[in-house]
Amino acid sequence: MLIKDLIAEQAQLAKVAALKMAGITTETKNAALLAMAESLEKRQDEILAENAAEVEYFKKNSSRLHMLDRLILNPKRIKDMAEGLRQTALLPDPIGHEDFHVTRPNGLKIRRVRVPFGVVGIIYEARPNVTVDAAALCLKSGNACILRGGSEAIRTNTKLTEILNDAAISVGIPEHAIEFIKITDRDAIIAMCRLRKLIDVIIPRGGAGLIARVVEHSVVPVIETGTGVCHVYVDKKANLEMALKVALSAKISRPSVCNSMETLLIHKYIAETFLLDIAKLMFENKVELRGDKECCRICPEIKPATEENWSTEYNDLICNVKIVDDVDAAINHINKYNTQHSDAIITEDKAAAEKFQTLVDSACVYVNTSTRFTDGFEFGFGAEIGISTQKLHARGPMGLEALTTMKYLIEGNGQTR
Amino acid sequence: MLIKDLIAEQAQLAKVAALKMAGITTETKNAALLAMAESLEKRQDEILAENAAEVEYFKKNSSRLHMLDRLILNPKRIKDMAEGLRQTALLPDPIGHEDFHVTRPNGLKIRRVRVPFGVVGIIYEARPNVTVDAAALCLKSGNACILRGGSEAIRTNTKLTEILNDAAISVGIPEHAIEFIKITDRDAIIAMCRLRKLIDVIIPRGGAGLIARVVEHSVVPVIETGTGVCHVYVDKKANLEMALKVALSAKISRPSVCNSMETLLIHKYIAETFLLDIAKLMFENKVELRGDKECCRICPEIKPATEENWSTEYNDLICNVKIVDDVDAAINHINKYNTQHSDAIITEDKAAAEKFQTLVDSACVYVNTSTRFTDGFEFGFGAEIGISTQKLHARGPMGLEALTTMKYLIEGNGQTR
Repeated sequence: MLIKDLIAEQAQLAKVAALKMAGITTETKNAALLAMAESLEKRQDEILAENAAEVEYFKKNSSRLHMLDRLILNPKRIKDMAEGLRQTALLPDPIGHEDFHVTRPNGLKIRRVRVPFGVVGIIYEARPNVTVDAAALCLKSGNACILRGGSEAIRTNTKLTEILNDAAISVGIPEHAIEFIKITDRDAIIAMCRLRKLIDVIIPRGGAGLIARVVEHSVVPVIETGTGVCHVYVDKKANLEMALKVALSAKISRPSVCNSMETLLIHKYIAETFLLDIAKLMFENKVELRGDKECCRICPEIKPATEENWSTEYNDLICNVKIVDDVDAAINHINKYNTQHSDAIITEDKAAAEKFQTLVDSACVYVNTSTRFTDGFEFGFGAEIGISTQKLHARGPMGLEALTTMKYLIEGNGQTR
Repeated sequence: MLIKDLIAEQAQLAKVAALKMAGITTETKNAALLAMAESLEKRQDEILAENAAEVEYFKKNSSRLHMLDRLILNPKRIKDMAEGLRQTALLPDPIGHEDFHVTRPNGLKIRRVRVPFGVVGIIYEARPNVTVDAAALCLKSGNACILRGGSEAIRTNTKLTEILNDAAISVGIPEHAIEFIKITDRDAIIAMCRLRKLIDVIIPRGGAGLIARVVEHSVVPVIETGTGVCHVYVDKKANLEMALKVALSAKISRPSVCNSMETLLIHKYIAETFLLDIAKLMFENKVELRGDKECCRICPEIKPATEENWSTEYNDLICNVKIVDDVDAAINHINKYNTQHSDAIITEDKAAAEKFQTLVDSACVYVNTSTRFTDGFEFGFGAEIGISTQKLHARGPMGLEALTTMKYLIEGNGQTR
């Protein structure tokens, strides 16, 4: 059997499950999430056994040992997964919510209600917790899902989805509502991307390479997530003490995540002193700085930045710095190099702040605070399926509602046109 | 210069215009729409001259003379276009609308507001009125647009966009906010579809072939529109008089449009009499019927349907008929063969109606009325850019709001994470 036929067969099963899922009640979905949580804890030994074997193999065979931590499970991490499932059960159910209704002059009653997408495809990398999070959010939003995780965690993920399915089915969720793809060839990803009538949306979660591959090949609609080239612009009217604190934190608090700062822009009027102050702090925190000519002149410890640097997501203790003429120049630089994720201005000037918020083309535009707040929990949305960096359908942190679509329900009494 | 570089250059200009458009007021946009309307009427002779030459050429050189009417302009049609522009000026401006705000425990103020997409690409076929409609809706929603119309109308469309741009620019709309692609090679479409950083969304308006080509090649997010394989299901508890009226109208009132019925499903309990009655009406109205075995047995004038027929959008006086066991069988047939556009049930049984509305996976699901009502004006939304048949972002008739996205604006006072 060809990979593409195998994947299509799984997607077909998921689609049948999805059509049933559209009729499943909130009570059943929540009962399933609680049963899944309980089963993960009860069957912890089975999970840890698969995971230990996989970790062992990874240690012996992989050169990417810095990624080992992402793969490892332990009782604490399994408890966290179970906790995530229980929290998802507590979230309000988006399905069935009516956001528009009208009675037309001809008597037609038109309602618009939230409904599940159907089948959500999620393609991700090595973290087994994504398997549980994604399954939980898709289930709560009434979707079937088809999951494709990284090869390193294939045994752990297979066991996890087996346990999740057993528990969900036991309380009335249809079989195949959580389909897991065991084929680890990259061709499996391409095959998923071609299933236009069977998968309703694909969400890639991972590095820029994975996302680009999915966008290139997919005829299924894609929600892009996660790549972040985020900026902080320190205006001439900034509270400089605040600017130092925010800029430093935006870089160093967790450099590996997508909402951390990659480029710091500084207004020319304050450049000389501010640059030296922030550079000192950055160097003390082991951050490498790369700057334009003027920055390098003011502070010779700064390395010259290449054109490519301005659009690079370092995910590391590296930061670009640049001096700009005014807020317009800052906006232009950002709109040229950002990934439309998160950007911030530090200023006491309301007009500059408003201009920045209006014209910077990003999901989240901040005034006097850090880009690091772009996060489902920080926004109060609860668990998120990712941060959308595209403009279609969802933008910014995606909670349950981003996993739904809507439908018009129209009632008449024999009207014709 | 290569086609792809030319198109990229135009898209780059549109992008610059789009970033300016984000700051244009409702007043300026409305003034532009009114100025555009006036200019179309004032410069009518220029338009008609270009159109006459093009119509002449088409008559001599094209074999598709049934499409001639779509191309022809006259003073009445130009007046209608101008009227459309004036009506768009009257629509509420979706931009700036705040649909969510919260103050978080840490003091962050988070707001979510409607903003333009940026650059909207629209690819369409021969009707010149689409040029004007699309430009108007994109402008009112604060977007720049890049338009690519069919080759038959290239001279007319070039003149129209020249007039629209002149008028818009004269009241303060940035140059290049309405970009028109003059290259008629199909490669121009492919080139548009590759401009991931420059075009924010592409909306194809046209036949299934055009839409499939765009979906196949596009790395820009696409909103699919228009293909309609719509069903009417007559339940055993239907008001049969109503069913006859609705089914007939759904087929014959305007067979060329996407919301007309292509397949009629009939419950087995009422099949014998209802089929003969509806067949008589259909034949009187020159509709060809294609049916399953049982239909052909009951009414031998019905031709046997092929498997392919069930998923064909005829856009013509042809209709499939099929007898089904119950509402579940009807739902299964519809979910297998429809294009997720519009489907209807005729029944007095509330439980059957609710099941049908819940489980049929379409943008618009009707009870006791015709699928023909899926339309922006009929829903009270005003002019529409198309009917979305996909689930991402927009579903059903797409008005101005479907041409917008949102953005989070966050204000703090030095918070860090």
